Amino acid sequence: MSSEAVLDFKAYLAEKRGIVDAALQGYFPESEGLTSDLVKAMRYSLFAGGKRLRPILCIAGAEAVGGSGKNVVPVACALEMIHTYSLIHDDLPMMDDDDLRRGKPTNHKVFGEPIALLAGDGLLTEAFSVMTSPEISGRVSPQSLLQAIRVIARAAGHEGMVGGQAVDIQWQGRPADLGVVKFMHTHKTGAMITASVASGAILAGADGSQLRAITSYGEKIGLAFQISDDILDIEGDSETMGKRSGADEKMGKMTYPAVLGLDPSKTIEQELVQGAIEALREFDHRAEPLRRIAQYIIERKK
Amino acid sequence: MSSEAVLDFKAYLAEKRGIVDAALQGYFPESEGLTSDLVKAMRYSLFAGGKRLRPILCIAGAEAVGGSGKNVVPVACALEMIHTYSLIHDDLPMMDDDDLRRGKPTNHKVFGEPIALLAGDGLLTEAFSVMTSPEISGRVSPQSLLQAIRVIARAAGHEGMVGGQAVDIQWQGRPADLGVVKFMHTHKTGAMITASVASGAILAGADGSQLRAITSYGEKIGLAFQISDDILDIEGDSETMGKRSGADEKMGKMTYPAVLGLDPSKTIEQELVQGAIEALREFDHRAEPLRRIAQYIIERKK
Repeated sequence: MSSEAVLDFKAYLAEKRGIVDAALQGYFPESEGLTSDLVKAMRYSLFAGGKRLRPILCIAGAEAVGGSGKNVVPVACALEMIHTYSLIHDDLPMMDDDDLRRGKPTNHKVFGEPIALLAGDGLLTEAFSVMTSPEISGRVSPQSLLQAIRVIARAAGHEGMVGGQAVDIQWQGRPADLGVVKFMHTHKTGAMITASVASGAILAGADGSQLRAITSYGEKIGLAFQISDDILDIEGDSETMGKRSGADEKMGKMTYPAVLGLDPSKTIEQELVQGAIEALREFDHRAEPLRRIAQYIIERKK
Repeated sequence: MSSEAVLDFKAYLAEKRGIVDAALQGYFPESEGLTSDLVKAMRYSLFAGGKRLRPILCIAGAEAVGGSGKNVVPVACALEMIHTYSLIHDDLPMMDDDDLRRGKPTNHKVFGEPIALLAGDGLLTEAFSVMTSPEISGRVSPQSLLQAIRVIARAAGHEGMVGGQAVDIQWQGRPADLGVVKFMHTHKTGAMITASVASGAILAGADGSQLRAITSYGEKIGLAFQISDDILDIEGDSETMGKRSGADEKMGKMTYPAVLGLDPSKTIEQELVQGAIEALREFDHRAEPLRRIAQYIIERKK
């Protein structure tokens, strides 16, 4: 890859991140009313330095099928709200009991457990309010909006992310099992990554064949992304990760490296990324950001 | 009120409850997969003997404006899922720390805190999946469905129920204040009760004037219902309530009786119920169930 191409991709990410951040700011103005602590807690985690991967996937998914990225920004923001809620609840003492997230104290360390719980609940709920706002419903067809919301809700719920999280919690400390770890990864992380790119494509009017290709891409990078996280947890340093390295091993968490070893996990990760790019073979240059995002999963570790 | 009329209303409630219960069973079949504990926990609280007040309000709201109650059943079920999630999270040790709900051990006492947290998250999310299912989107206009979902999401989120819950938690043990207790009640309970009846009316094609009347009805019975709960907490016995009586006072919770005294609270409750019935003056006999529900708020204490 030439340095100019790398620069373009970086600029693309920065531009989309800026659009998403500005829109998120608009959804959560600071307030001084009775619920000001709650709003502060929601804002704290929402603006804690997230990479906005899911919103960017949604925008890039819309663009890949020839649609407008701008039109899907409210849904892109909703995806980040759902992601953020899941992190706040995951970090609670009853769950992973994490004190640090992206190098900053976790939500409950700053605001206390009750407000952290409610901040998560509020972000999850606000996601659906934003997705049904007149702002978005005037820009896309109501039918495709309902379809996109359903894809996102199913990916986030007990048959998706929440289900993966339940299995993660219940299997900690048990013997490693590839079936379980794959279920966990495809549900806990993969489902929402797939829904992010698929919802963008749906809103932009993707046909059946395009949506299948985009969904296949999403499933592959979703799993690759989680395997990559597992590898980073072993090989990365605390600075890159913003949390203690080796934390998964300490928690007795089930990961690909724990089940298969480090090198076979890296091979699978590579194959998934190549498969994701291959899934987009029928798409033109407008799918280039999606291809770069797939490569980025591996490159971020270098 | 003649005994025959009482019997009719009871039969109405029983019929609608049966329809809602059957639909909810269909949404949550028992499963034996990796997430079986999570699904069990969701089912446990969903079928713990709830009165289905919010779903019945949604159905009755649709019928009051001449629509089909049957068409709104998925949304009615979603309202019960959101209500149930809020109870599970409220009962957690970090929140109200309740061991008993409707006379049964609370969710976290049976399934543990992590699964209870996730069961709540899952129920909230599934509500939005159900509301966007092809089953409902084929029966009502997509525009009114999006509007109804937005009304419900806003009522459930940080500007509604979650906001009220945050204020409830933060004000425990502080001096009683009528402004705060009214904010808490209208947000924590009132918002979702209003959204229940309003969403039914929206889906049934209510015009602006009808929707305003229905919303006014909902706001009044919502506040009356919470004041009634406060009074029941003092006057009721544990058997009727399914929880310890006097629990609010023990927790230092802010209630209408605590701020204004018992008799003035009863007067306000009566006025609200009368105002709610008055708000429906332009409606014909099809609004009779809504009028009876308003009366029931006071009568359940006799």
